[in-house]
Formats: sequence, C-alpha cells, structure tokens
Amino acid sequence: MTTPHFPLKIACLSKTDASRAEVFSPFNEQLLGTVDQANKADIDKALSTAHSLFKDRSQWLSVVERIGILEKAVEMMKAEAESLAVGAAEEGGKPLIDSQVEMNRCIDSIRACIDGLRNDAPHTIPMGINPASQHRLTTIRKEPIGVVVAISAFNHPLNLIAHQVGPAIATGCPVIVKPAEKTPLSCFRLVEIFHKAGLPEGWCQALLTESHEDTESLVTDDRVAFLSFIGSAKVGWYLRSKLAPGTRCALEHGGVAPVIVTKDADIEAAIPGLSKGSFYHAGQVCVSVQRIYAHRSIARQLAEKLAEAAKQLKVGDPVSADTEVGPIIKKSELTRIDDWVKEAINAGAECLCGGKALADNCYAPTVLFNPPANAKVTTSEVFGPVVNVYPFDDIDEALAAANSLPFAFQASVYSRELNAAMYVADKLDASAVMINEHTAFRVDWMPFAGLKHSGLGTGGIPYTMEDMQVEKMIVMTSKGISA
Amino acid sequence: MTTPHFPLKIACLSKTDASRAEVFSPFNEQLLGTVDQANKADIDKALSTAHSLFKDRSQWLSVVERIGILEKAVEMMKAEAESLAVGAAEEGGKPLIDSQVEMNRCIDSIRACIDGLRNDAPHTIPMGINPASQHRLTTIRKEPIGVVVAISAFNHPLNLIAHQVGPAIATGCPVIVKPAEKTPLSCFRLVEIFHKAGLPEGWCQALLTESHEDTESLVTDDRVAFLSFIGSAKVGWYLRSKLAPGTRCALEHGGVAPVIVTKDADIEAAIPGLSKGSFYHAGQVCVSVQRIYAHRSIARQLAEKLAEAAKQLKVGDPVSADTEVGPIIKKSELTRIDDWVKEAINAGAECLCGGKALADNCYAPTVLFNPPANAKVTTSEVFGPVVNVYPFDDIDEALAAANSLPFAFQASVYSRELNAAMYVADKLDASAVMINEHTAFRVDWMPFAGLKHSGLGTGGIPYTMEDMQVEKMIVMTSKGISA
Amino acid sequence: MTTPHFPLKIACLSKTDASRAEVFSPFNEQLLGTVDQANKADIDKALSTAHSLFKDRSQWLSVVERIGILEKAVEMMKAEAESLAVGAAEEGGKPLIDSQVEMNRCIDSIRACIDGLRNDAPHTIPMGINPASQHRLTTIRKEPIGVVVAISAFNHPLNLIAHQVGPAIATGCPVIVKPAEKTPLSCFRLVEIFHKAGLPEGWCQALLTESHEDTESLVTDDRVAFLSFIGSAKVGWYLRSKLAPGTRCALEHGGVAPVIVTKDADIEAAIPGLSKGSFYHAGQVCVSVQRIYAHRSIARQLAEKLAEAAKQLKVGDPVSADTEVGPIIKKSELTRIDDWVKEAINAGAECLCGGKALADNCYAPTVLFNPPANAKVTTSEVFGPVVNVYPFDDIDEALAAANSLPFAFQASVYSRELNAAMYVADKLDASAVMINEHTAFRVDWMPFAGLKHSGLGTGGIPYTMEDMQVEKMIVMTSKGISA
Amino acid sequence: MTTPHFPLKIACLSKTDASRAEVFSPFNEQLLGTVDQANKADIDKALSTAHSLFKDRSQWLSVVERIGILEKAVEMMKAEAESLAVGAAEEGGKPLIDSQVEMNRCIDSIRACIDGLRNDAPHTIPMGINPASQHRLTTIRKEPIGVVVAISAFNHPLNLIAHQVGPAIATGCPVIVKPAEKTPLSCFRLVEIFHKAGLPEGWCQALLTESHEDTESLVTDDRVAFLSFIGSAKVGWYLRSKLAPGTRCALEHGGVAPVIVTKDADIEAAIPGLSKGSFYHAGQVCVSVQRIYAHRSIARQLAEKLAEAAKQLKVGDPVSADTEVGPIIKKSELTRIDDWVKEAINAGAECLCGGKALADNCYAPTVLFNPPANAKVTTSEVFGPVVNVYPFDDIDEALAAANSLPFAFQASVYSRELNAAMYVADKLDASAVMINEHTAFRVDWMPFAGLKHSGLGTGGIPYTMEDMQVEKMIVMTSKGISA
Repeated sequence: MTTPHFPLKIACLSKTDASRAEVFSPFNEQLLGTVDQANKADIDKALSTAHSLFKDRSQWLSVVERIGILEKAVEMMKAEAESLAVGAAEEGGKPLIDSQVEMNRCIDSIRACIDGLRNDAPHTIPMGINPASQHRLTTIRKEPIGVVVAISAFNHPLNLIAHQVGPAIATGCPVIVKPAEKTPLSCFRLVEIFHKAGLPEGWCQALLTESHEDTESLVTDDRVAFLSFIGSAKVGWYLRSKLAPGTRCALEHGGVAPVIVTKDADIEAAIPGLSKGSFYHAGQVCVSVQRIYAHRSIARQLAEKLAEAAKQLKVGDPVSADTEVGPIIKKSELTRIDDWVKEAINAGAECLCGGKALADNCYAPTVLFNPPANAKVTTSEVFGPVVNVYPFDDIDEALAAANSLPFAFQASVYSRELNAAMYVADKLDASAVMINEHTAFRVDWMPFAGLKHSGLGTGGIPYTMEDMQVEKMIVMTSKGISA
Repeated sequence: MTTPHFPLKIACLSKTDASRAEVFSPFNEQLLGTVDQANKADIDKALSTAHSLFKDRSQWLSVVERIGILEKAVEMMKAEAESLAVGAAEEGGKPLIDSQVEMNRCIDSIRACIDGLRNDAPHTIPMGINPASQHRLTTIRKEPIGVVVAISAFNHPLNLIAHQVGPAIATGCPVIVKPAEKTPLSCFRLVEIFHKAGLPEGWCQALLTESHEDTESLVTDDRVAFLSFIGSAKVGWYLRSKLAPGTRCALEHGGVAPVIVTKDADIEAAIPGLSKGSFYHAGQVCVSVQRIYAHRSIARQLAEKLAEAAKQLKVGDPVSADTEVGPIIKKSELTRIDDWVKEAINAGAECLCGGKALADNCYAPTVLFNPPANAKVTTSEVFGPVVNVYPFDDIDEALAAANSLPFAFQASVYSRELNAAMYVADKLDASAVMINEHTAFRVDWMPFAGLKHSGLGTGGIPYTMEDMQVEKMIVMTSKGISA
Repeated sequence: MTTPHFPLKIACLSKTDASRAEVFSPFNEQLLGTVDQANKADIDKALSTAHSLFKDRSQWLSVVERIGILEKAVEMMKAEAESLAVGAAEEGGKPLIDSQVEMNRCIDSIRACIDGLRNDAPHTIPMGINPASQHRLTTIRKEPIGVVVAISAFNHPLNLIAHQVGPAIATGCPVIVKPAEKTPLSCFRLVEIFHKAGLPEGWCQALLTESHEDTESLVTDDRVAFLSFIGSAKVGWYLRSKLAPGTRCALEHGGVAPVIVTKDADIEAAIPGLSKGSFYHAGQVCVSVQRIYAHRSIARQLAEKLAEAAKQLKVGDPVSADTEVGPIIKKSELTRIDDWVKEAINAGAECLCGGKALADNCYAPTVLFNPPANAKVTTSEVFGPVVNVYPFDDIDEALAAANSLPFAFQASVYSRELNAAMYVADKLDASAVMINEHTAFRVDWMPFAGLKHSGLGTGGIPYTMEDMQVEKMIVMTSKGISA
Repeated sequence: MTTPHFPLKIACLSKTDASRAEVFSPFNEQLLGTVDQANKADIDKALSTAHSLFKDRSQWLSVVERIGILEKAVEMMKAEAESLAVGAAEEGGKPLIDSQVEMNRCIDSIRACIDGLRNDAPHTIPMGINPASQHRLTTIRKEPIGVVVAISAFNHPLNLIAHQVGPAIATGCPVIVKPAEKTPLSCFRLVEIFHKAGLPEGWCQALLTESHEDTESLVTDDRVAFLSFIGSAKVGWYLRSKLAPGTRCALEHGGVAPVIVTKDADIEAAIPGLSKGSFYHAGQVCVSVQRIYAHRSIARQLAEKLAEAAKQLKVGDPVSADTEVGPIIKKSELTRIDDWVKEAINAGAECLCGGKALADNCYAPTVLFNPPANAKVTTSEVFGPVVNVYPFDDIDEALAAANSLPFAFQASVYSRELNAAMYVADKLDASAVMINEHTAFRVDWMPFAGLKHSGLGTGGIPYTMEDMQVEKMIVMTSKGISA
C-alpha cells in the first residue's frame, strides 16, 4: 500500500513542486504519509484569501449554513471514526483504546459547536435605571473576530483540531491551521471532511511550513485577528510578544499538576485514577498527574500501590488493542525524560518502578518517591510517564509546595472529609481542582485554562467560540420605549 | 402614653366610623394599638383605586422613580430601625435580639429590591438558527403583572411585609396588604414610611378586614392579578381554589423540617445550630427544626446535649435584651402545642426537657426522644418550641421517614463525610438542604420554596419580583438584521 | 385496509372489554381508527403505577438514559415522519403541507428536550457577602416534580404531544397523557415510539376516558404533581379550582390576537404574513390573527388586499398536497363560527370575502371590515378562518381597543418607523409582540405564555421542562470555604 | 494658599528626598500641586509589598471586608464630591459641569463594584450528561488574579481611577496605580479616601515615576499579573509586547468614531447629541464623534446646523460654571490639532466653523465639510474639538468608508427607519452602535471595548472585575451524587 500524500490545503493553490514533510510512526519509524510544506508566498496566499473573505460581509456564511455544514461533518466523522482513530494512534502514538475515546470526543466537540450556535441568545445590559439610560434597549450580538491562525500540538491529533478549527468554522472565522509536524495527517483528514461537508475551502485552510521562521511570519502577520496556540510555554509567550498590534491570542501550555492526598483519603479507590492520570498517553498531556503530596502516614503505602499499578500497565504498540501506554513522541524527548529521572535519582529520589527507556521509543511507567524540591521532575513539566510522591506532615506545607511553581492549571485533592477537601480545594492555585478524581479529568465542555505561565485565556469549545467572536452592542434609543 | 391608632391606608378614604381592631401583647396582654377595619365597600374602593392606576400606563412610575422611593425608604428605615424592632417584638413576641436582626434584614430586603431593579437586564432567545428564525432579534422585558393582594403572617411582622410589599413597589404593581391580625402595627408603620418616601398612596394600601369572608372577597376579586399568601396550608390551598380566572398566586406555608445526623457527625459543633433552629422565635417559624433523625449510636447523646442547651435558654419578656425565647402568639396555640406534646408522651415519647406551659403565654423549650411515627408532633407542624429526636439504624430508613410527609421545604444533614453528606442531600425531598447547618438558615436572597403542600411558587426578594412581573418578548423582524 | 385500533397505554393493563372511541376524519367522516377508553379503575391503575415509580428514587432513569431514549426516538420519528404527518392531517384536518412542518417541529421539539438536558448547568446564589453567609457554597439542581397529567388539544396533534410529553420524559416525570378526543391517533403513535425507543411503559401512559367526569377525577387526584392543560379557558380555570392541594399546573388557552398597522407600514410586505396568520389551520390556532387595527388612511386598502389573498387560498381536503385551508374540526364549531360571522354582519360589519360554510365541513376564509366593538368576533376567540379589520384615527385609541379584553397572548405591530413600532410594542398587553410579522409566528424554543385569562405559566420546551422540575438547593457550610 | 503636596503612596515608604512633579492648570498654567516621583527602588518596594500580600492567602481581605471599605468610600466620596470635581476640572480642564457629572459617575462606579460583589454567584457547568461526567458537581468561584498595575489617562481623572482601582480593590487584587502626569492630584485624593475608608495601604499604592523607562520596568516586572492600560494605541501595544510571560493585560485606546446619517433621519433631533458627542471635553474622549457620513441630500444641512451649534458653545475656563468646552491638555497637542485641521483644509476640506486656536490653550470647536479620505483628520484620532461631515450617495459606500480604518470602537447611526437603522447597525465594525444617539454615549455598566487596534479586552466596571479575577472550578466527584 502506498502511503498517502496531502497537498497544501490553501484555497486555489495547486502546486507540484512543494517540499515535502515525511511523517513517521514514533513506535516503529514506519513512513505513514507525506505532506507538502508552504513557503512564504504560499502562506501569504492563504492569509490573503482568508482576509478577503472576512472583509466582505456579503460572503459570510449564515449561522444556518454553518450549522448545516457542522451537522454533515459530524455524520461523516461518525462514519470514518475507526480509521481516523487508527491513523491518530499510528502517527501520535496514543494507544488505540484512548485514540478511540479521543475520536468520540472529537465528534462530540463538533456537536458542542453546533450546540453553541443553537443556544446562542444575545444578551443585554440594564437600561432605564438612571436618567441617562432611560428610553433605551440594548442587544449584544456576536460577530466573528476575523482571521484565525491555529497552531496545534501532537498529543491529541484529532480533538485539538476539533477544538481549534471547529469553533472557528462555527463562529464564521476563516481559519488557517498548522498541525504539529509529527501528527499532520489526522488534521488534514479532518479538514477534508469539513470541505466535503460543504465548507468552502477558503474558510478552513491547512498547511505545514518549511521553517519556524515561516510559521512566525504566519502568526505575526497583521491580517491575523486571533492566534490559537497549543504547545510549549516558551514558544507561546514568545509568540505573544511578536504579535501584530490588534491581534488577540489564546495560549495553552503545560503544568506540573499537583495532587494532595490527606491522611483519611480512600487510597484503594484513588489508585486507578491516579495511575490513569499519571500514565495516560505516556504522560504526554498538559494536565498529567506529576506531583502527589501525600500525608506521611500514608505516603509510602500510596506510592507503592501506585508503583504496583504502574507495573501492570501494558506498554508497547499503540495500534494494538490492549496497549495502555505507547511510545514517546520522539527520541530526543525520551532521552530528556530519562535524564531528568536519573538526575532526580542521583539527587535522592527513590525509584519504585520504571526509571528506564524500553524498546521502540517507549519509557517504563515510573514512580519516584520524594525527589528533591529542586529536581527538574519537581519543578518542570516532565511530559512523560513519570509521577512523584512526596510525603508531607502539615497540609499548609503541602499547599505551599504545590503552589510554589509559576504554573497553575488543573489540580486534585483526595480526602473523605468534607472540610479537608474544601480547605485544600480552596487554597490550591489552579483553574480546576478535582475532589477525589485525578488532575487529567476532562469533559470537552469544561473550561480549560492555564493560569500564570501555563496559558492565556480559556480553552474548551464554548470558551474558544467566545474568544473567536467580538460582541457588538446595539443601543436603541427611542421615546417609544417606556422608562 | 396613649396607644397609637392607625386608620385604614386606603387612598382617598377618610372614615371616622370604622370598627377597630385592638392589638395586644402576647406576653403581657397590654394594649399596643388599634387599627381600623375595612368593610366590603372599603375593600372595593381599594381595589378600584389599584386597578385604575394599573390600567392607565401613563400613571405608571418609572424605574428611576421607584428606585428613588425605595432608596429614600431605606434611609428612613435605618433611622427608625430600633423603634420598629421594639414594636415588632412587642406585638409579635419575637425576642428583641432577634427582632433587631429581622429589622436589619427588612432593610436589606428593600435594598435587594433596588438591586433587583438596577441589575435587571432584559434577556433574549436565540434567533437565526433555522430558516424560520432568520433576520430577527428578540428582547424580553418585564412589566408589572397588575394588582397584588398580599396576605401576611404574624411571625416576621417586618420582614414579611418587606418581602411582599417591597417587590410589588419595586416592580410597579399596585399592592393591597392585609397584615396578620395579631401584628398589624409594624405593617402600618412600614407602609407609612413608603408613603413618606414618595410613593403615591394608591400604589400601596394597607387594611385589616372585619371578617374572613371579607378577606376572601378581597382575594377572589377578579381585579386581582396576583395573590401573595403567607399562612397556613389549609387556608392557602383553599384560597387558590377560589381565585378568579386569570389570578396568579404564590403560597408560603409551613413544613415539618427534617434533619439527618450521621454517625460520624460533629455533634458538639452541631448543637448550637440545632438549638437555634429548634427554638428560634419559640419554633414559630415555617422551617423550624422539628424532626431530627440521628444514627442510633449517637442519637441519645445528641438528644441529651440538645436538651441541655434548651434548658439554658432564657424564656420570657420579648422586649428584654437577654430573652432568647418569647411567648406563643396566642393562648389557643399554647394549649394546642401542649396537647400535642402530651399526646406524644402518652404514646411513648420520652420528654428530655420542657413539656409544659410557663407563665405569660410561654412554653418551655421541649426535646422529645423518639415519639411515635403517627404522633401529631411527628406528622404535623408544631409551630412551637418542640423538637423530636429519632434514632435510626439505616440511612435509607431515615430518608424514608424524613420524606414520608406531604410537606417538603427546608431540611438538613449533619455529617463529616463528603459522600454521606452528598448522599443524604441528594435524596431528601426539600427545596433546600443544608449541610452542617440547621433547617432555618436563611439569607434573604435565597429562594424560599415550599414544595408539595408546603407552598406554591418561590419566595425571596428576587423570586417574588419575578412572580410579580410578566415578560413581554418583542420579536423584531427586519431584512437589515443579518442571518 | 382495516383501521387501526389502540388499546389503552396503561402499564401492565391488558383489557379486552374496554369501551371504544371512534376517530373520524373531520373532512370526509371516514373512520380512521379506534381507541380504548379508560374507566375510573383504569385511571387509578395508571396513577398508581406512575406514583409508585416516582416515589422510589432507585427506579428513576438517569439523565444519560433519558438522553439515550430521546435520541433514539428522534431517529425513529425521522423515519416515520411522513406517515405521522399524513395521519395527523387526516384526523385533525390541518393541511398536509402544514402537518409536515408540524412534524418537523415535533422532531425539533424532542431535540430541544435533549438540548435542555445537555445544557442544564446547576445554578447558585451568592454567599459570603455578609457575615451570615460566609463560609458557604450553594448548588441548585433540578429534580422531577412528580406525576404529570397532560390534557391535550386537537389543533397540533403531534407537536402538542411533543411539548407536553417530551419535557416530562426528559425531566424524569412519569406522565399520563390524555389527547384530544378528535385526534388521539397521532398521540398513541408517538407514545409507541417512545416505548420502542426504550422508555419503560410506566413512565409514559396514554389514555382516553369515558367521560369528562372521569377526566376530572384523573386531573384532581392528589397523586398528581403537575397538570399540563391545553384547551379552552373555561375548562382550564375550572380545573385549576378543582386541583388537589399541592398540585401545580400550566394552562394554555386562546386569545383574540390584535395587530396594529400604522399609516406608514409596508402593506404589500405585510399581506402574505397576515393572510397566513389569519387562515393557517383555518384559524384554529390560539394566536391566530383576529383583530387588525389599521390606520384609517390605509385600513380599507389593507382589508381589500387581505380579502384578495384570502380568496386565492385553496380550501379543501387536508391530505391533498395543494390544500392551504382544511376543514373545521367539527360540525358544531362550523355552525358556531357562521353564527358569529352572521351576527357581526347583521350588526354592521362588512363582509369582504367568505362569510359562509362550504362543503365537507370547511368554512370560507372571511375578512370582516369594522365589526362592532361588542360583536362576538371582536370580543371572543373565533377559532375559525375569520379576521377583522378596524380603522383607527389615533394610535392610543387603537391600543386601548387592542388591550380591552381579558385575554392577552401574542400581538403584532406593522410599521416602518422605529419610534412608532417601539411605542406600540411597548404598550400592547401581550407576552409577545412581533414587529412586522404576524401574531402566529412561533419557533418552538420561544416562550409561549397566555396572560390574564389566556393561560397560566409559560409553554415552550425549555419552559415546560422548568415547570416539571423542582429546584433543590444544597447549602454547604464549611470552615474550609474561604470568605 | 499653599499648593498641596502628595508623597508617594507606597506602603511603609517614607522618603523626603524624592524628585517632585509639578502639576499645572492647562488653562492658566497655575501651579496646582506637587507629587513625589518614584525611582526604580521605590517601584520595586511597591511591587514587593503588593506581591507579598497576594502570595499569602491568610492576608487576603474577605468579601465582607471589601464591601465594607467600598461602602465607606462611597460615603466619603459623596461628602467630598464637589471639591473633587473642582480639582479634576482644574488639573484636567474638563468643564466643571461635566466634571461634576464625572464625579457622580465615579461614585456610581464604586457602587457598581459593590453590586458586582453582592451579586456574584458562582456558576457551574453541566455534569451527569454522559457516562464520563456522572456523579459529579461543579462550582466555579472567582479568585483575585494577583498584582494589578494600572496606567491611567488624563481625560477622566476621577472616573478612570474608579474604573481601574475600584475593581482591583473589590476583587482583592493589590493594585499599583500610575495616574497621568497631567492629572495625578485627583488620583491621589481618591486613593487617600480608600485608605481612610479602611483599606490597608499595601492593597492600593499610587505613584508617579521619574521616566517612561521606569514606568516600563514597573509594567514588565514578572510579579505583575495584570496590566490595565488606558492611553495611546502606540504605547499600549508596545507594552503588550514587553510584558513578562504570564502577565495578562487590558488596553483601552482611542478610535476615530464614525456616524452614519440616513436621508430620512430626524436632523433637528440629532444635532444636540452630535454636538455634545463631538465637543464634549474638547473632543478629548476616545469615543468622540469624529466622522459623520451623511446622505448627500441632507449632508450640507446637517453640517451647517452642527456648525451653528458649535458656534454657540461657551469655550474657556473649565472651573467656570457656564463653560462647555475647556482647554486642550497641553500646548503641543493644541499645535498638532491645528496642524491636522490646516492640512485637511489645504487638501480641500471646507471649514464651517472653528479651525483655529484660541487663548488659554483652547481650540475653537471645528466642523469640517468633506475632508479627503487620506487626511489625518479622517484616518487618525484627532482627540480635539474637530468633527468632519462627509456626504455619501450609497449606504454601502458609507459603510465601507466607516469600516476602512484599523480602529473600531463605538459608532452611531441616525435613521427614522427600522430597516435602515438595523442594516447599518448590523454592518458597522464596532463594539457598540448607538441608534439615534451619539458615539460617546456611555453609562458605566456598559461594556467598553476597543476592537482591532483600539484596545484589548473589555472595560466597564463588571468587565474589569471579571478580568481581574481567575476562575477556579471545583469538580466534586461522589457516588452520593445521583446521576
């Protein structure tokens, strides 16, 4: 079977001499497909098309048309769900069982875009409550913000595209999406579905670039109204500093998610979730469980049980139906993770399981007991299958440690006691605190907001739809309106 | 000092030959004041004035005017707060310390009416989401519903008037209020304040009637758009059956409030609240703690501690600064309460404290242990300082007992455990379940809704304001509105 | 072909000796089917089943289960849409083209029930804003209210059932539906679909009764938590007066919908809508255009153009694809309509078209010019294909006439001018005022609320879902919650 | 009388050797006061204090405490309203009559902060609607975002401070405010009031700096969580590019506000508002009316009437009770404005009135007819008392011109016709479109959002409060929560 090739999805561009990116399996290095790469001129063409569409209100698609396209796309995605899931597992390395879940969530995300349109009632503000505001009515409607550029990440090749592109289509923004270089195939397949569902090509264009510099030129063009960026904090905040005046952005980076386990917690009940939250997609998730602060009386027991669970996990071929943990996305990352683990062990952490690279770019699920406060595994996002357990004596000390980093995203507390659970939930720096649930818990209509260095703005379908729209208030003044 | 006399507050009525009601202290039978009583013709005049005002939109007060009047009234109430509290304590028998709190809440209730106006933004519904709804915008504004008749109760002579009359004034409904026969003086004083604050008399009229029959004629007149009734379930549901076609109503009756205490609950911490919730205003409150289902392992201990607390309560003159429990509103009620307690004891309940009438129409705070399931104190609202403790073995059995009556209003669960607390809160039939707080907890912006036989509609300032308004949706269709 | 027979849809009842109701076409008197009728014992069985289900929380269906059932039902309805539309046209007489629209709306109504569940976030109230409310959090969730009895009307045999039964299923209320005697077949077909979609039979039961007395015994049983009634005002308000204490209700009756047309209105543009709004389903719609107040300068012209449009309408067999106006639901109604029209003409109204009965129970679309203010066609709901045009000189006079009846529901204003349109919309007594659109405009997520004698409560899918639920507030008190 | 001197309002800093800024009247160059200037070390101290307060949750003020402080501050502001208004008029040059209005709005803004706290109910998201979300409840509460730096502008010396500092105090953010160099006195007076009302000094610090470089060091410090900037677009977008990673910001710049007047508009009625909107505070307002596109049939008439109105305006001493237009804030701006007007006239604009500098730094209210599309007065914000009238033939051409700039903020349409008004309102690029009202219309609870280059985020009290808080979602998972 020949591997698929995807030309650039730039409207009205047909080009036969583009440079090609090759996409390999992170597990077995098999070539999975090729994708054309855009140069500066191609990028300019994409931007020009998108910008022209937006500037001409007569070309805008009505809400009824957009709902029709999204509903058709949902049907088509349902029909192709299995092959899309397999493709995503192949290129991204997320185990098939989890890729299937991701694909279902991808579909539900598009349905949430439809819900967002169907339920979008304008809102208003009070008038008539002081003399200056009498005889007036207001209506606040939403309009698309303009051209959206979406830069995506590798770890959810389907659902991230749904989260970045779906809202743009729904809200009527022309969108240009650049998927992760490691996982572009899923993106191109989804964009094709939108086109087949009736979306004119200019409203959703997809491309890879030849260089980071070219990507930067795309992002910082002054025709861009909104940047949606999912990736590393370093790149994200750098890009913000380079945006053209007037360009808005949302950034979604990682965290070093903390969990606090009080002495009365139900440990047995907690282990399955903590294991899932730590090792799901080999920890390559921005809200992966990384730092577990457990009361000293139960910390060791918890760590050992978690190590037991970790050892049971089936690591290997992501496309195999029983695999629970797949490969790391690339060799250099595997090496970095191993270096960090070794550094921690050398500095005094006890390795209860894992702590080593396996074949085929996999890393053994690893539980570290009590790494130092200044170890990289404590201070920085591992983005690998590594979790740390730290004993604590005093809850406020655990809270101080949990809150000590410049990142804040999702967090957890495990406790049977109402007061203790609320106390910890109240004091953790986080945009979401789960009580008796792991930090990576998510349903797609939840807000998803990195705080501090972890991100800017709020992700999640309804929130991104809001970001991609501006509000226009109409204030009608008329003596006919009673006071 | 001569006692005050209040003529009928019916606009443009001046009458010298009205029959007079006398108001006596329930504690010492002292005459506190007299109030004229309306006959059928007077009632008709009040209705006619109110209805004429409402039918003529040109006479409606603007929101700006209504805010001005309410703000002025708040200032005046603050200035007269102490004398109003004393007056309420005298006629209603609620201890001064609690009457002062009630007066502060009365003021805050009027402020909440102002808040309700200042923050009232029209809402809208989605349009443009299918072909039939394209090119349209909606606005949903509120208008006053029409003439309001408010029938009030004795147990909160100030704040109930604020809750029934404040929203009517705020929303622009002409209101006719009939206070309880035992506590009309506070009502007439508050209505005077509204008039002095600038409200034209026709917008708020107050009266007592000569007979229940006359009250019924007021309530059932077809010019009445809305009846607000606070009182007994029997009378309330009867009045509903007699309303004219088109008249809406809200009823607020009593309950037989249940509390469930699990075995791990913090008993020490619970007692002060349970004591307050049981004996506040001598139990003459519709959400008074009445039935405490406690796990058998701690039930007796809980009951005894509660009896200890009950014995410490200072019972007596409501106007005295250290009184905690005042008199029963009238002799016949005192007798009824005592009969019910005696019936329960004869049927097997153990009386841990109280169980007897005291001097000056007071009743000793009473804790009964394990009265039978069919005793009146178990099945009906005592409306007196009597609380029952029942041991249980199984939580579902306690829930079944708690939910077995045709009343449902506020309820409580005491537990340290998150799961147990949520389980009970989830399964109790109630409009409000407090976790680790007694059933009579209330702040005035909370919804206050009797379910089943306990009432109809939802009380509380913002909810009553909503009830007293109708919504008018304007659907604007224009090709100028984009789809 | 044999006509279909429907046994009672009462759970676990199988009965061979029930009396049968026969259903005939109002157009050609053909027998369309038969339906068993419940006697008092059958009704009691239905109530008993419903009540037992509700009292036992362990039998409640989860939201996930209810969504699943409704989604399956939507699929099945789509598959059977055409035959359901034909069946409804046959028994109810609404022309097929409109019955097909009704069927689509019926499907969308069920989808709106699913939307209502998917988007139902609990709400909360502020805490921590004064000392009494510190250290607290609230959550207000919804629970089913209890047993629902739905009494339905003939004029929308599909979508009314969707509006009354869909919300009950969605919210988890056991529902017993009694369709109109003239159109039970559509109801029984829809209920069968819900059962086949997985709804256990006890959660949705359907029946006809042997007598009005039996229907009243169903409605007034004290196990009924909520009555949903669509029908005549006289019956509705009577039933309210007979309800058991604790039973809530929503009533949807008719109106005598007014339209005001200012002198600058775009008459040409208005005629198609006014014609549709006047003659849709032969005027047998509760918000049918009935009273058009037009400025004297354009009133005659408007009336004549409307008569022209009326004359073009194709009247006849409802199942025929080109019929625009079908028969009146029964002979006695036809006679009544004709009597009213004759009365008006005798009293001075000018008949511009129609004014007579046609073959097959049809009535000719009728435009009356300037009937007297006290004619029945002016003061009462015609519920037939009759519309009146009244000239006016002064807009306030037109408003006074429009607002003079004890009914208020939907209304319209036609004007090019912003100020005039807002002035009229502001002053009409109505729950919905359309600007430049007829009074019968409706999409199914709009609120639909008869005011004054026209009804009680608000219809429309999301509003009925709200009515069929009670709110339970959980107030969590914990020192762990910061102030 | 000696002029007042204000030391730096940096907590625990007492310094006698600071450099001093002198504040002069823009009208008569009188010295009005002096203010100490912070150097880098002082700025660091202010940041350090603010950051330490924020990091220690035990020092946070409760909502009850914050409401108490704000209510006290409102009382004190009411008492000092007149002297604050005079002081603002003196230093900023806004006429006293308008400064008094501003002071009232300043007070209402603080009251709106209180409203914002009193009405802040947590919200939630749906759970239990798919298997993954069963048995869960959410609560989304708000927490302060961290240290706020507010950089303010000169044109509303009182109400801008209220808008930037009030929300910070209300939401519990430590705030450091740098007022405009021309109008610091009003700021320091207001900050003093907050301190006297009970706010500990560290929670609100105020300072001027020695240089722009120092201001930049304040803004870009990584302890800053939120920058609120009001000023020029050039500086604002530059500062965004320099922010530390993790720092959020809101920018409020100017616009070149367009108005479209259709041929049927009521010109007489429009003139007073257009005159006010053009010349209020000598046009030094970011939503000042600048570009009026009027249908050719009425454009000249409109322009002439507007010029007539402009000529009637009393220009001069801001502190004088009858002055309507005061001075320009500084000489260099006066010169710039005159240069732009001259450039436009030289390029073909017709000057209907004004067009010249007056004594005392004032500029004559100026109406230009039909300046070229590329004149600075057409393309850039004048920020002076200059308004242009352009005739148009076709509405879409007028819309294209109105939408042609990279700015979008408030806009207006004047029309008697509903369809025309909605058409224009629908198609103007703006965050607010007034119908029959000028572009500078504002009440303080309105959103105030510059789009494109005009700003970032949304101003207005409730919106800024939202910006200054992060949301924390608590997801409680419990089998006790029914599905």
